[in-house]
Amino acid sequence: MPRYKLIIEYDGTPFHGWQRQANGRSVQECLEHAVLGFCGETVTLNAAGRTDAGVHALGQVVHVDLAQKYPTRTVQNALNFHLRPNPVAVIKVECVDRDFHARFTAIGRHYRYRILNRPAPPVVDFNRVWHVPVPLDGVAMHSAAQSLVGQHDFTTFRAAQCQAKSPLRTLDRLNVDSMGDEITVEASASSFLHHQVRVMVGTLKLIGEGKWQSSQVASALAACNRSCAGPTAPAWGLYLLKVDYARSGNGKSTDRAE
Amino acid sequence: MPRYKLIIEYDGTPFHGWQRQANGRSVQECLEHAVLGFCGETVTLNAAGRTDAGVHALGQVVHVDLAQKYPTRTVQNALNFHLRPNPVAVIKVECVDRDFHARFTAIGRHYRYRILNRPAPPVVDFNRVWHVPVPLDGVAMHSAAQSLVGQHDFTTFRAAQCQAKSPLRTLDRLNVDSMGDEITVEASASSFLHHQVRVMVGTLKLIGEGKWQSSQVASALAACNRSCAGPTAPAWGLYLLKVDYARSGNGKSTDRAE
Repeated sequence: MPRYKLIIEYDGTPFHGWQRQANGRSVQECLEHAVLGFCGETVTLNAAGRTDAGVHALGQVVHVDLAQKYPTRTVQNALNFHLRPNPVAVIKVECVDRDFHARFTAIGRHYRYRILNRPAPPVVDFNRVWHVPVPLDGVAMHSAAQSLVGQHDFTTFRAAQCQAKSPLRTLDRLNVDSMGDEITVEASASSFLHHQVRVMVGTLKLIGEGKWQSSQVASALAACNRSCAGPTAPAWGLYLLKVDYARSGNGKSTDRAE
Repeated sequence: MPRYKLIIEYDGTPFHGWQRQANGRSVQECLEHAVLGFCGETVTLNAAGRTDAGVHALGQVVHVDLAQKYPTRTVQNALNFHLRPNPVAVIKVECVDRDFHARFTAIGRHYRYRILNRPAPPVVDFNRVWHVPVPLDGVAMHSAAQSLVGQHDFTTFRAAQCQAKSPLRTLDRLNVDSMGDEITVEASASSFLHHQVRVMVGTLKLIGEGKWQSSQVASALAACNRSCAGPTAPAWGLYLLKVDYARSGNGKSTDRAE
């Protein structure tokens, strides 16, 4: 059975997150339904990042095994046809080896968090940014963020309901940039704990508005206690940007099946 | 009566354009309604650019005269409160002199047009970009665009229903840039004819897909005939970015009234 790697974009607003739910529409369910519409197969999809309700993706990665070999462009166009009118699109399809697994062979995950930092509410970017009307100091946020980079016990920065066995994670990058009235936080790691990016952003916001001193981030981290961090930033500012795999291209040329 | 300059952002999707209409919601009507809600005054607003149905604005400029003097922050917050839940926001308020007129004293208007150039439909940017699935050559588009810069008779590039007395306009800048799967066209002029940016973009798209040679843009311009240009690009890719006025700051400090 040929395995396909799909790169997926979605607007998380109307969904109860990536994962199939008993009640409430999920991105997974939409995509599995589109696969059924395309080739009549009932599949279970695996994704690199199980994004929460409201979280967006520009480069989520999913793999699927289909009984037949199709040109990759056919798979992409057919799935996009069957995905309508849901705000989910397949932006790339590749044929990959059977040892490729969207979740388990991923070696890097990149997230972006967007803050709109101005008095007026977001309009063109409604549901796409976290609106923070009080002025934030992006330089102070970036500086404080650096104490989180590296390997740490991130117990302070994970959701109470996080199911990961170990709270140890290695944060490769946590950059805060300001551009006009937007502040962007970009986070990269091989994997993250549940809510980790949003709790880090919610904490950095306290630094940005001057409620916390820079050194408090390091002490919160050392405390290994969720109640020592700031509140969880809302889902709608978060984007899963990109997922890395070991081999460049992560599979065969798309021409092979065409 | 103090005059206020308002910088306005809106998502043009649900509106029949800027201008008040007999049937259909307009941005002007929403804003005038918010002014009524704030201070009980019935006003008629003037805008720098009378954007069409579906066109967005990140920096539309409007002026309004109110009977009383208010702190600018009060005007902004109150209007934003009364604008809800319409996708319109006041992003800045300044007190200006009586000789300031949003439309008649504007000396520069800047528009951006966004094209999403990939096979997959837009999802996160649905209604925010023009989706062109065939590959476009952005470099060729930029090069061809340069023959439109300068003072010309733009009859070829205006809507049949354009009411401007003269078709002469001076286009200061028409830049085409590619970034990832997005192609952006930026146009600057002291003023534009009706649909001018969208007809220019629709024509440059023909260059981008190789249906037209670069020299055909100059010949179409010289023909002074609307039927010689390409089709009008859709409204939803267009943004009114910014409007320039002669004096820097365009008025008094916002502190004066506070």
